[in-house]
Amino acid sequence: MAEAKLLISSRNYSSWSLRGWLLCRLAGLDFEVSVVSPEDPVAKAELLMRASSFLLPCLVQGDISVWDTLAIAEHLNEQFPKAGMLPKDKAARARCRAISGEMHSGFGALRASLPMNLRAHRPGFLLWSGPKADIERIQTIWRECLETWQGPWLFGARPSIADAMYAPVVTRFLTYDVKLDPLSAGYAETIMKWPDMAEWVAEAKREPEQITELEVDAEF
Amino acid sequence: MAEAKLLISSRNYSSWSLRGWLLCRLAGLDFEVSVVSPEDPVAKAELLMRASSFLLPCLVQGDISVWDTLAIAEHLNEQFPKAGMLPKDKAARARCRAISGEMHSGFGALRASLPMNLRAHRPGFLLWSGPKADIERIQTIWRECLETWQGPWLFGARPSIADAMYAPVVTRFLTYDVKLDPLSAGYAETIMKWPDMAEWVAEAKREPEQITELEVDAEF
Repeated sequence: MAEAKLLISSRNYSSWSLRGWLLCRLAGLDFEVSVVSPEDPVAKAELLMRASSFLLPCLVQGDISVWDTLAIAEHLNEQFPKAGMLPKDKAARARCRAISGEMHSGFGALRASLPMNLRAHRPGFLLWSGPKADIERIQTIWRECLETWQGPWLFGARPSIADAMYAPVVTRFLTYDVKLDPLSAGYAETIMKWPDMAEWVAEAKREPEQITELEVDAEF
Repeated sequence: MAEAKLLISSRNYSSWSLRGWLLCRLAGLDFEVSVVSPEDPVAKAELLMRASSFLLPCLVQGDISVWDTLAIAEHLNEQFPKAGMLPKDKAARARCRAISGEMHSGFGALRASLPMNLRAHRPGFLLWSGPKADIERIQTIWRECLETWQGPWLFGARPSIADAMYAPVVTRFLTYDVKLDPLSAGYAETIMKWPDMAEWVAEAKREPEQITELEVDAEF
């Protein structure tokens, strides 16, 4: 039996589940996954709110339950300091936390308009100004990191908590055909080639559940 | 000169500035405060979004800038491990991070409807169902902590990051005349008697700026 269990909802639609799962992988945690069906009323309500979920993902270790993705990140980092979930350098570490926090609490327009949907592809998707501002800000964040720490990950040679936090955003950009600057496009490629990411996406594509409200076709 | 500078916006209206400031005090950091006027376009936009700010508060230490309140919390906790910003016990520590994360990314209805306003008092304020659900959830979180760790703070005998995260919520409950269960009311009292909190509130009351859009009189 694994040491820990990660409760998640939909692999296709739940960006927070994906983040929690990538974080457990980054930590090197021995864990198993338990899927709360996206048809479950609580799970579905959280998915439709398109906000940070407060019950899923949830990491269960014995009698300890940790919900909230950033809490899972710091909780794991503390338990697995050698996993390098945060960069070692103090300035990089501070920046990694700042942009992870910004992702955690911000970008509401992007979340509302471009819900994660790994199975979908919407070429020519039209964007209004709200998500456009979010997309600009995200590319600025990425460029600053990639220029400072030289890629291919946000903080250099290996993935960190910040990459797990921004990975679902990359899939949104691909799903909704968002044009990216060259540095950001290169970073998107790094994320999609991440073996853990590829594994998750493959499983998402096999998931049967379809949530009509999250099948967004166009923006008005 | 102080070792660090905390950039904040309005003391009266900015709940995130208050959180950042309480966190610096909890850490025992030697810091000075620099106020970006709430009339500044960026500061005002953030205040009116009523979401987590992404530029303020910002902690500046030499050439390191940390924005985002939770990032500031973990950044300070790492630098000042003896300050006890997180409980020592592993389960309490995990819970402290989970509920702090939940505050950081959630409770949108509460934020939108009951903006922090330390100078105001609105007896008989009417609430719609959105903030009501948030208020119920917050009291559940508080009761569980107060029952498990025996108060008067959420995790026992001393304040933690979670108390800094929930402190502005206490002021909202008082401003908008929200009825609380007895345990939660006792906790609200603990927060308002916190000397750091009292100091902030006193300064907020002396602040001249008034932001009309945040002077919410009633709910419809």
